[in-house]
Amino acid sequence: MLTNTRTVRIEWGDCDPAGIIFYPRYFGIFDSSTTALFERALGMTKINFLKSYDFLGYPLVDTRAKFVKPIRFGDDVEVHSSVEFGTSSFTVQHRVTLDGELCAECTEKRVWAVRDPDQPERIRSRPVPDAVLAKFS
Amino acid sequence: MLTNTRTVRIEWGDCDPAGIIFYPRYFGIFDSSTTALFERALGMTKINFLKSYDFLGYPLVDTRAKFVKPIRFGDDVEVHSSVEFGTSSFTVQHRVTLDGELCAECTEKRVWAVRDPDQPERIRSRPVPDAVLAKFS
Amino acid sequence: MLTNTRTVRIEWGDCDPAGIIFYPRYFGIFDSSTTALFERALGMTKINFLKSYDFLGYPLVDTRAKFVKPIRFGDDVEVHSSVEFGTSSFTVQHRVTLDGELCAECTEKRVWAVRDPDQPERIRSRPVPDAVLAKFS
Amino acid sequence: MLTNTRTVRIEWGDCDPAGIIFYPRYFGIFDSSTTALFERALGMTKINFLKSYDFLGYPLVDTRAKFVKPIRFGDDVEVHSSVEFGTSSFTVQHRVTLDGELCAECTEKRVWAVRDPDQPERIRSRPVPDAVLAKFS
Repeated sequence: MLTNTRTVRIEWGDCDPAGIIFYPRYFGIFDSSTTALFERALGMTKINFLKSYDFLGYPLVDTRAKFVKPIRFGDDVEVHSSVEFGTSSFTVQHRVTLDGELCAECTEKRVWAVRDPDQPERIRSRPVPDAVLAKFS
Repeated sequence: MLTNTRTVRIEWGDCDPAGIIFYPRYFGIFDSSTTALFERALGMTKINFLKSYDFLGYPLVDTRAKFVKPIRFGDDVEVHSSVEFGTSSFTVQHRVTLDGELCAECTEKRVWAVRDPDQPERIRSRPVPDAVLAKFS
Repeated sequence: MLTNTRTVRIEWGDCDPAGIIFYPRYFGIFDSSTTALFERALGMTKINFLKSYDFLGYPLVDTRAKFVKPIRFGDDVEVHSSVEFGTSSFTVQHRVTLDGELCAECTEKRVWAVRDPDQPERIRSRPVPDAVLAKFS
Repeated sequence: MLTNTRTVRIEWGDCDPAGIIFYPRYFGIFDSSTTALFERALGMTKINFLKSYDFLGYPLVDTRAKFVKPIRFGDDVEVHSSVEFGTSSFTVQHRVTLDGELCAECTEKRVWAVRDPDQPERIRSRPVPDAVLAKFS
């Protein structure tokens, strides 16, 4: 299973008056980490793979996150991300560590979204294309 | 059980290149809705109840959210929030609706955080004070 | 000159570890306030006037802001916005007050953007349509 | 004059429904770039130099930005930042380039903020300490 690891600096503006990360920022980090994983597997940036695969993105259907240890501005955390593909959706797991200690983890259930051919203003999901699956194996 | 309902306008800047809400913004809405619920029960704004109860906030321990129907800029959604108190944590539920239809729901497990008396730079959790519980019943 | 005033609640998540608004959030407030002004003049939400006028938005070319007095979570500020139209751009002014006292002010120079008919992936600016100008007078 | 350059990836969530950066995110990038410049000069992260110099941060008094060329998700921009110190404030300049082309520039006027010794809840500004100035020369 392909795993991608990236380092993220927590910034002053990510933190709230308690001095720790404002947790909605975590989900921005998770979203960018999912993209980093896909970019690595597909060998191009998201703006390019949206065009190449004629798709709209991978909206979130369901997410669960646990926050174990607060992180602060100036912390350089590592985000370890991996994916498992199902028939109609896929699951991305993220683990955030600081100096090897677990700070947070998240499970995202996402779908592969395309423009509805009959109603171009609407989004519909469809199975992840085989050409994409092949890049992850 | 006390429930609070508030209306939130989804803004252009809350949305991503797919034209729908960038899901991490949802968690900002949930966080503000938890605060609105506490503000209503306690009869003062957060900046005041932090002082009154000598506390640091209610950091998130665990959250689960489902996204059912995409929302867009210009949508005025309703957020319905309620809370249940346990012995060492509490659970807030949020339901987001647009014209009566469910768009998203979220369950947050949070703790009551205070400054550690022995190490003022550290945060620790403790039971929600009875004076606070009384305001919710 | 049409002026629009709206009330904005500053949230916990808008504030930084110093306990005051993280200033980039101010620009999110300014952007939403420009939209509120246009929505009021045009009588429809942005998602609808983008379609009605076949346009892409009003990207910022130049902005200047002064921050006079810090604001905090729980503050309900008033944002007063007005616009002046030039030949190839327009200028929006925002004044933010709390209990009548000035907290910040901003001048935005924006252009009216449309899809380039020759290169649909590119954005170009053109004069604000007369039909739009008429709604503001 | 000390200049710091860092590379910033523009993320999907930084962009709006027009597919380009939502300009308030630019100010988050400018703020982090000011911090990166100070961190480089002072040889420690912000959370540490706040303690070392007993200070609260460098709130923005006035800012001016020009946006020349739109940037998109997947773009890796370079941010070049430098500072000039005055008697009661200092000015930070940021230039954002993509493949050597100017995309945006910003001038920030900031003050050095400390806790008011007489009213610990209030913030006041004072001249930048000589020990800090020395690190920049």
